[in-house]
Amino acid sequence: MSDRIFQLAKQVGEALKLRQQTVSTAESCTGGLLAGAITEIAGSSAWFEQGFVTYANQAKQQLLGVPGAALENHGAVSEQVVEAMALGAVNAGADWGVATSGIAGPDGGTPTKPVGTVWFGWACEGGSSTEVICFAGDRQQVREQAVIHALQGLLKEIHKTTV
Amino acid sequence: MSDRIFQLAKQVGEALKLRQQTVSTAESCTGGLLAGAITEIAGSSAWFEQGFVTYANQAKQQLLGVPGAALENHGAVSEQVVEAMALGAVNAGADWGVATSGIAGPDGGTPTKPVGTVWFGWACEGGSSTEVICFAGDRQQVREQAVIHALQGLLKEIHKTTV
Repeated sequence: MSDRIFQLAKQVGEALKLRQQTVSTAESCTGGLLAGAITEIAGSSAWFEQGFVTYANQAKQQLLGVPGAALENHGAVSEQVVEAMALGAVNAGADWGVATSGIAGPDGGTPTKPVGTVWFGWACEGGSSTEVICFAGDRQQVREQAVIHALQGLLKEIHKTTV
Repeated sequence: MSDRIFQLAKQVGEALKLRQQTVSTAESCTGGLLAGAITEIAGSSAWFEQGFVTYANQAKQQLLGVPGAALENHGAVSEQVVEAMALGAVNAGADWGVATSGIAGPDGGTPTKPVGTVWFGWACEGGSSTEVICFAGDRQQVREQAVIHALQGLLKEIHKTTV
């Protein structure tokens, strides 16, 4: 794990601890690395209770309650799905949910969703936000950049709230 | 991710692909890194559908069906709990389940369960096996060694079965 990821995960942990809040992860393309980053911080059990790695569509539906229609109409790598994943993470019992769904490659890219495309979702009880980025690099680089961006976005959302 | 972990995850993927089987992860102390290693391999969606990061006891019970009595009587870092976690991963819909529960540190150690103690569970429909190891090193080193051992044990179990 890069030092940058570690420092970001530490900042997320500090922001959550200060607010006595928790986060739950809902990962597709990052495949557990986001939860792995958050739990790298000693004492993270105070702000992290569970995470979901939902690689298959069925897992997204069963574990996170993503509507089948969203998957069918927009595909797993879409704003609709990543938003539902983030909300599903909150519903599992957390103050914050953070979700990733993308195409890490080397296969799976299409003209409209090339390799490197990653959708991000952040949610809390009050609402949700989403973002899409197309990262350059190989599979490992795409996943690492996605973990960084997911943590940066989460930190930004948490910092909007009062302590 | 170290090259050693990558190579092991690749071997696990090849062994599962050959058998057209899947694996599901149930992680406590490794916190997502085990799923992250498995999904680092391109094409892993063929053998990995979902993973669980169950850091809190409640998550172990709700997501993996770990009996409350096992947690109460033996603690989260125990043979009984890690075996139930691995079986819970199989029940979620996979041919193989692999589970970790340990004390990565720096806090949380006790005289009978010092920092570095990690219980491992591997399961399939036919049965389960468990092992405990006390690793040396800091939090990151304990977690990395646990990922390696979990993958090695899984590979060993898969290789016992016919193609």
